[in-house]
Amino acid sequence: MQDPDHEVLDVTQLARVDNDQSRVSKLANALTGSEILKIAADIRKLVRDGADICNLTVGDFGPQHFRVPGLLRDEIHQALDRGETNYPPSNGVLQLREAIVRFYRRELGLSYPVESVVVASGARPLIYGSFRTLVDPTDTVIYPAPSWNNNHYITMVGARPAPVVCGPEQKFMPSPEALLDELPRARMLCLNSPLNPTGTVITKAALEGICDAILAENKRREQAGERPVYLLYDHIYWMLCFGQTQHYTPVNVRPQMARYTIFVDGISKAFAATGLRVGWALGPVDAIKRMTAALGHFGSWAPRPEQLAVAALLDNPEAIRSYHAEFKSQVQARLDLIHDSLQALKREGLAVDSIPPMGAIYLTVRICPFGRKTPDGHVLETNEDVRKYLLEQAGIGIVPFQAFGYPGNTGWFRMSVGAVGVEQIRQAMPRLAAALRALVPA
Amino acid sequence: MQDPDHEVLDVTQLARVDNDQSRVSKLANALTGSEILKIAADIRKLVRDGADICNLTVGDFGPQHFRVPGLLRDEIHQALDRGETNYPPSNGVLQLREAIVRFYRRELGLSYPVESVVVASGARPLIYGSFRTLVDPTDTVIYPAPSWNNNHYITMVGARPAPVVCGPEQKFMPSPEALLDELPRARMLCLNSPLNPTGTVITKAALEGICDAILAENKRREQAGERPVYLLYDHIYWMLCFGQTQHYTPVNVRPQMARYTIFVDGISKAFAATGLRVGWALGPVDAIKRMTAALGHFGSWAPRPEQLAVAALLDNPEAIRSYHAEFKSQVQARLDLIHDSLQALKREGLAVDSIPPMGAIYLTVRICPFGRKTPDGHVLETNEDVRKYLLEQAGIGIVPFQAFGYPGNTGWFRMSVGAVGVEQIRQAMPRLAAALRALVPA
Repeated sequence: MQDPDHEVLDVTQLARVDNDQSRVSKLANALTGSEILKIAADIRKLVRDGADICNLTVGDFGPQHFRVPGLLRDEIHQALDRGETNYPPSNGVLQLREAIVRFYRRELGLSYPVESVVVASGARPLIYGSFRTLVDPTDTVIYPAPSWNNNHYITMVGARPAPVVCGPEQKFMPSPEALLDELPRARMLCLNSPLNPTGTVITKAALEGICDAILAENKRREQAGERPVYLLYDHIYWMLCFGQTQHYTPVNVRPQMARYTIFVDGISKAFAATGLRVGWALGPVDAIKRMTAALGHFGSWAPRPEQLAVAALLDNPEAIRSYHAEFKSQVQARLDLIHDSLQALKREGLAVDSIPPMGAIYLTVRICPFGRKTPDGHVLETNEDVRKYLLEQAGIGIVPFQAFGYPGNTGWFRMSVGAVGVEQIRQAMPRLAAALRALVPA
Repeated sequence: MQDPDHEVLDVTQLARVDNDQSRVSKLANALTGSEILKIAADIRKLVRDGADICNLTVGDFGPQHFRVPGLLRDEIHQALDRGETNYPPSNGVLQLREAIVRFYRRELGLSYPVESVVVASGARPLIYGSFRTLVDPTDTVIYPAPSWNNNHYITMVGARPAPVVCGPEQKFMPSPEALLDELPRARMLCLNSPLNPTGTVITKAALEGICDAILAENKRREQAGERPVYLLYDHIYWMLCFGQTQHYTPVNVRPQMARYTIFVDGISKAFAATGLRVGWALGPVDAIKRMTAALGHFGSWAPRPEQLAVAALLDNPEAIRSYHAEFKSQVQARLDLIHDSLQALKREGLAVDSIPPMGAIYLTVRICPFGRKTPDGHVLETNEDVRKYLLEQAGIGIVPFQAFGYPGNTGWFRMSVGAVGVEQIRQAMPRLAAALRALVPA
């Protein structure tokens, strides 16, 4: 190491490259930052300045509100102490892959071979891996809007985006008809249910219709010797359905879909463990095998102690059920509180609405006092105007649906409750009401 | 979840897609599996059948031989218990990035701004991220052979490979002259020192020459308004240099290189922590910022408790020094034992050689009894013949240099000692000697 007498070389100015020209790849230039992260930076600044913000923007959990299951934590401790700190296999430790097979059989009624499972450091690498493994540049990828990050993955692989805008009349979930136009040209269709950002779920009938269309299309392609269209089914929130809400999967409703479905799943949301980095995918063995090779080069492997701990957790239905009984009721209490508050404001005649929570950690709300004037004399005209006004006037952080590819200034927003307490919401709702009541006709 | 009365749907046959046609992307088809993993599978089979194998093939550690630092383990425990289980920032937790800045200042004498640092789940995502962020399809990438996995990353981004074969006369490290031909066309040059697979290090003079050539080329390009050539400097083994061996970096020998160098580093090898998935890169702020955006989409984030624990470790020079005193002496004892054994066999007149260990966990050995006949009557003609013979006859697993892009049946192999004990090596060396002595003229 360094000779202690040696002077330290300060390269700060050299490293802060001052260059108008981009020095990076075309892909790096094409990548756009996350809208949500920009909003988060806004909020961090206010919090640093001492503001009390009810931050409903992040799809994450605050440890003061939501902890990971005690069993998961204990099993990580034990794996660490056993010295389970060397490389996991590139497709995940066998114990975990076998536990996932048992878990899907027990909880979803789907019996997959262990070769259908691959483990990675969360859901993102598996989504990216699916795009890289299945989609060629210029291939068409269909996805509903609003949805999360499909546009970024499409940019990264150079595919052709085919967004399908889905409106509030179907709780922002797609109907088969809306997707059919592009299906003959598509290489992949991306679905997410329960859906980020809306917290709504796809109906059985809609999922059946979509699967039937995919199976018909792939039958034609198989006869023509063409590559199939795949369904990327991100159901990372499936364990977080509330009340009578039923979660359906493509393979449960149409078994033949096992040939064309990639499931994306993990512990991040279902067990408040976004920072432990364990996700998994299930799919046809040929695709999963290729995805494993790609993930090996990305290096997106989940840490070994965490993998072993997740295996123990998934094999313990009692621990899962008791954790979820508490966890889901806490999430739902927050969502219900906001929903009930907004419905009361709606009855009062304010320009707000919300969709009853069905799953995930999100609530879809509409706040559309467009054309009205703030006490400062600004007329609210866009979602962004509303977002800023509520952040500054009511101390509430929310994300406009444009951040999820939903176009237009429609007044729709995502509220996410993992990082706030019930009491914080209870205090924020009157501030929201007051801010809306303070608006006057322009 | 699943209705308990509902029948389980067995999709095993459907998921085991039986289809002659490839159903995946062009990229997925182009990816070739790791040679080392194939050899590892061979060995696993023998071990399952009860064979006692001295496995010198894996670039990993066995927990019975090498544990992570106690401080690192304890800090992970504490972070877990504090509930540090939510998302890390996409560039890594600030505590860790600041600790890395202090660590590089203290140990390498390089003072970087914190914006120059990005954290990921090991070195691989940072290498892949550098390729994606800096290299366009058809761009030229120069790399010495033997080296590790550059060919795979080049395939993944569709770049043009420019391998430069480096021979034993320079301990398999490149000279500036060898790299200069392609430099005017190159977008990136990849160096690794100490080098996987050889365990040798680059000399100060060679590194200075390479940096001078890069700086001259980039001066020309800046004037012409062209994008620069970058140096990807993977020094993941730099803390594992033995004895008087000195580690040099491009920025230490030529400060201007801070504008063009991406350092790749991490805990995997230096702290026997391959399974904890924490790596970091340092570089010019513009490139690191773009790489952070790309890594966010890959989802290759290091787990949060591990990130915080690494911050504590890097800030504790005493813990690092006492850990390395023991760890490095253990690694070196193994390397020296093999090296000394081979030199004795060489003096005996057997067709073997080895390069004195300088760093990392590898030894470069030559075993070239080509043209001689095994007791079974097979004539050894290729590296692969030798590898198989030693595995089956002597119970020793080694990796031919072809797996690292070094062409030809030259008799050069990598031996890796992280997963074997001194006693295992002590027992294996006589078996190696006996197997070589058992060969007869063809």
